[in-house]
Amino acid sequence: MSTAVSPLAPTDVPEMPAIAGVRLATAAAGIRYKNRTDVLLALLDKGTAVAGVFTKSKCPSAPVEWCRAKLKGGNARALVVNSGNANAFTGKTGKASTALTAQIASKAVGCSTNEVFLASTGVIGEPLDATKFDGVLAQLTDAAAPDHWMDAAKAIMTTDTFPKVATATVKLGKAKVTINGMAKGAGMIMPDMATMLSFIFTDAPVSASVLQVLLKAGVEDTFNALTIDGDTSTSDTLLAFATGAAAAQGAPKISRASDPRLKAFAEAFQEILANLSEQVARDGEGARKLVEVVVEGATTKPSARRIAMSIANSPLVKTAIAGEDANWGRVVMAVGKAGEPANRDKLSISFNGIRVAKSGARDPSYDEKEVSEAMKAPKIQIKVALGLGKGRDRVLTCDLTKEYVAINGDYRS
Amino acid sequence: MSTAVSPLAPTDVPEMPAIAGVRLATAAAGIRYKNRTDVLLALLDKGTAVAGVFTKSKCPSAPVEWCRAKLKGGNARALVVNSGNANAFTGKTGKASTALTAQIASKAVGCSTNEVFLASTGVIGEPLDATKFDGVLAQLTDAAAPDHWMDAAKAIMTTDTFPKVATATVKLGKAKVTINGMAKGAGMIMPDMATMLSFIFTDAPVSASVLQVLLKAGVEDTFNALTIDGDTSTSDTLLAFATGAAAAQGAPKISRASDPRLKAFAEAFQEILANLSEQVARDGEGARKLVEVVVEGATTKPSARRIAMSIANSPLVKTAIAGEDANWGRVVMAVGKAGEPANRDKLSISFNGIRVAKSGARDPSYDEKEVSEAMKAPKIQIKVALGLGKGRDRVLTCDLTKEYVAINGDYRS
Repeated sequence: MSTAVSPLAPTDVPEMPAIAGVRLATAAAGIRYKNRTDVLLALLDKGTAVAGVFTKSKCPSAPVEWCRAKLKGGNARALVVNSGNANAFTGKTGKASTALTAQIASKAVGCSTNEVFLASTGVIGEPLDATKFDGVLAQLTDAAAPDHWMDAAKAIMTTDTFPKVATATVKLGKAKVTINGMAKGAGMIMPDMATMLSFIFTDAPVSASVLQVLLKAGVEDTFNALTIDGDTSTSDTLLAFATGAAAAQGAPKISRASDPRLKAFAEAFQEILANLSEQVARDGEGARKLVEVVVEGATTKPSARRIAMSIANSPLVKTAIAGEDANWGRVVMAVGKAGEPANRDKLSISFNGIRVAKSGARDPSYDEKEVSEAMKAPKIQIKVALGLGKGRDRVLTCDLTKEYVAINGDYRS
Repeated sequence: MSTAVSPLAPTDVPEMPAIAGVRLATAAAGIRYKNRTDVLLALLDKGTAVAGVFTKSKCPSAPVEWCRAKLKGGNARALVVNSGNANAFTGKTGKASTALTAQIASKAVGCSTNEVFLASTGVIGEPLDATKFDGVLAQLTDAAAPDHWMDAAKAIMTTDTFPKVATATVKLGKAKVTINGMAKGAGMIMPDMATMLSFIFTDAPVSASVLQVLLKAGVEDTFNALTIDGDTSTSDTLLAFATGAAAAQGAPKISRASDPRLKAFAEAFQEILANLSEQVARDGEGARKLVEVVVEGATTKPSARRIAMSIANSPLVKTAIAGEDANWGRVVMAVGKAGEPANRDKLSISFNGIRVAKSGARDPSYDEKEVSEAMKAPKIQIKVALGLGKGRDRVLTCDLTKEYVAINGDYRS
C-alpha cells in the first residue's frame, strides 16, 4: 500500500483554534495498526447538543445503530472514535462491544452512556475487542486538552494519506463563534448516505433540532454529492456537536432553524461540509485527479444528480481521466446508461471549459492538442449540457488509477 | 495495451459447422486498426427471419436505431459488422453513414435496404466513413462462403483477447438443426440492455416472432446477468437469424413460441447464449478471475438480482478478488448498499463453498488458510444466503485488476 501523500492534498492547512467546551486526546490502543494513534476521545461540556446523519446501508455497523438510538436524547458528553476496525457485521459481539465501550467511556467521563457517541472505521467483519479501551479512555480523559485537532484528525485515518480539517469563525448575534470539522475518507464512498466519518464541533448555542436541520440540508450538495467508487460503507457517520459555550460571550441561543440570526452561521457550517467533502475527494484511494462533474440543462435537479453520478461512477470515464484522455464518447455512454431523459442530438460536453462535443456530434472547432494539454491539469471539470430544461447539479469524484486497485487488492491481508 | 490472451479463455474451442443459408466473409477495410480484419459480411438466403434485442441506453448508436427500425420487417439478407468505430454519438453524420452502408450492402447483395442489418463497435464519437465499405462489400459478397466462422468472430473483436464462438446441433422434429453463435466483449458491459455484439444463426425454420420470444427470454439469465464494469454501451446488439433451410430436411416450421416441438431447440438456443455470455465474462478487460455471484434466500428473484449486481459491480469486492482476498466484509457492504431487504444478522457468505460468515458474524469454523488457498482458483463463486425468502439469482463478472485500468486509461489515444 502506498504511503505517499495524495498529490491533490491541500497545500494550505488551517491552524485549528480551540473551541470552548471541547477537549481532545488521542492514543495508540493497538486495535490494528502499530506505531500510530487509533483512538480519539472528544470530551464535551455539559449541555452539548448533538445531531447526526448516517449511512443508508441496510447492514449498518454496530456503532451506527448505537448513535442512531442515542441521538434521540439530543445531548452528548463524549465521542469515542477508533480506526482499524469498523465493528461492522460482528453480530451480537458488535452490539456488546459498543455497549462496553460506552460503559468504559461513561465511567471515565462521568456521564450517562446515553451521552456517549461512537464511531469505528477500518476492517469489516472482525470482532472489536472493546476491553482495549479499558484504561485507555480514563487516561485520555485526563489528557484531553482544547488543542490536538490535527492529532485527532490523524487518529481517525485509515487509507487516508492526509488528515482533513477545516475551520471557520463567524458572527452569531454580536458574538464570534467557531466551527471546527474533521473527516476521514478514502474509499467505499458514495452518497445515499451521510458520509464516511466526519465530526463537526462548534461553541454556538444551537439546539439539537436546529443542528439536525443544518446537517441534513448541508450534506445534500456536499458529502452526498461525492463519490469515490460507488461503494457505500456500513459505517458512514457525520456527527455535529454544539457546546453552546459562546452563550457566555453573548451569542444568542438558537432553537429554530428559520431564525434569521442563523444565516451567517448556516452558511459557514455548509462551507465546512463542502470543504471537508472536497478534501475526501482529493484523497480518494489512488487519486491523481480531482474530477468535478457538472450537469446542466436536465429536466430536474434530481435528474441532473443521477446523470452526474452515472458519469462520476463510470469506471470507463474514470480510467480515461487517469489516462488524461478527453474521452467524451464514454461520457455519452454514462449519460445514456443513467436512464434519465436525454436527447443524444442536443448533448454538449466540455472538459475544463473546452467544448469537445455539441449537438450530438464532435465540435467542429475541437482541437485534440489543446484538449490533451488541458487534461494534464490536476483538476478536471466535465461539463455536460443536456439542453432539455433547467435542472443543474454537481458532484465530485476522482480518477480511477492502478493505485486504487493496488490499495484495495491488498488492504486486508 | 496487453495483447496476451485472457488466462480464462476456454481451452476447448469447438469446430464451427456450416449453416445452410449462411455465408460469411471478412475484410480489412482499415477503419481504425492496421493489419487486421475489421469488417464482417454475413449473407443470408431469402426467407431468413430475424430478431434482436438492444442496449437500453438513452443515447444509442446509429446502427442500433437502424436495426430497431428494420426489425419490424422480420426479414434479413445481410449483416454488416465493423469494429474500430461504433458510429455512436455521431449526430446526423451517423444516421447518414448507416443509410449509406446499407445502400452499398443492398446493391452488392441484391436486396432491399430493409433487409440489411448493421452493427458497429469501437470508439464512440468519431464519424464513421461509410465510403470505406464501397467496393469492400461487393468483394465480400463474392468471397462469402459457408465456413469462416472463426474469421468472422475475430473480425468483430475490439479489446477482446480471444474470439468467442459456440455451436449446438439439436433435433427439430425429425431433422437435425444447427445453431451457431459468436460474440465480442470486453468492457462497457452491464445488463439492462441486450448485450455487447452477439450474432446467432440457425437453419431452423423458426418465425421472426418466435425467434424474438426466444431471444428476450434467453438474455434474461445470460447476457443480462453479466457485468464487467457496470458501464452500458451505446451499441449493444444481439441479433438472431433463422434461415429456415432445414425445412428441406423435414424440419417443421415453427410459428408459435409455445409449440412443444420447440423445446429442445429452445434449450440449445439458451445454452448458446449462456456459453457466449460466460465467454464474455472470461474475457472482461484485465480479467484474471471469473466470478460467479449467487444470491439466495432473498425476498424475490429481482431482489436477488439487484443484490447480486451490487456485489458484482462493487470495485471493492472486485479488487479484493483480484488480490485473492476473501474479504466478505466488502460483500456485506455491497449487500447493504443494494437497498434491498436484508437482515444483517441472518446473512451467510461463502467463497467457493467455504462458509466464512454466518448469522451476521464470522463463521466460528472459518479457517483463513483454507480460504486463502481456495481464493487462488481461476473461478471464484461468492454465495450469499440472506435467509429471508426463496428469491435466488446468479450473475457473472470478473475481477478488477490494474490491467483493466491500463487498458482503459490508454484505449483511445
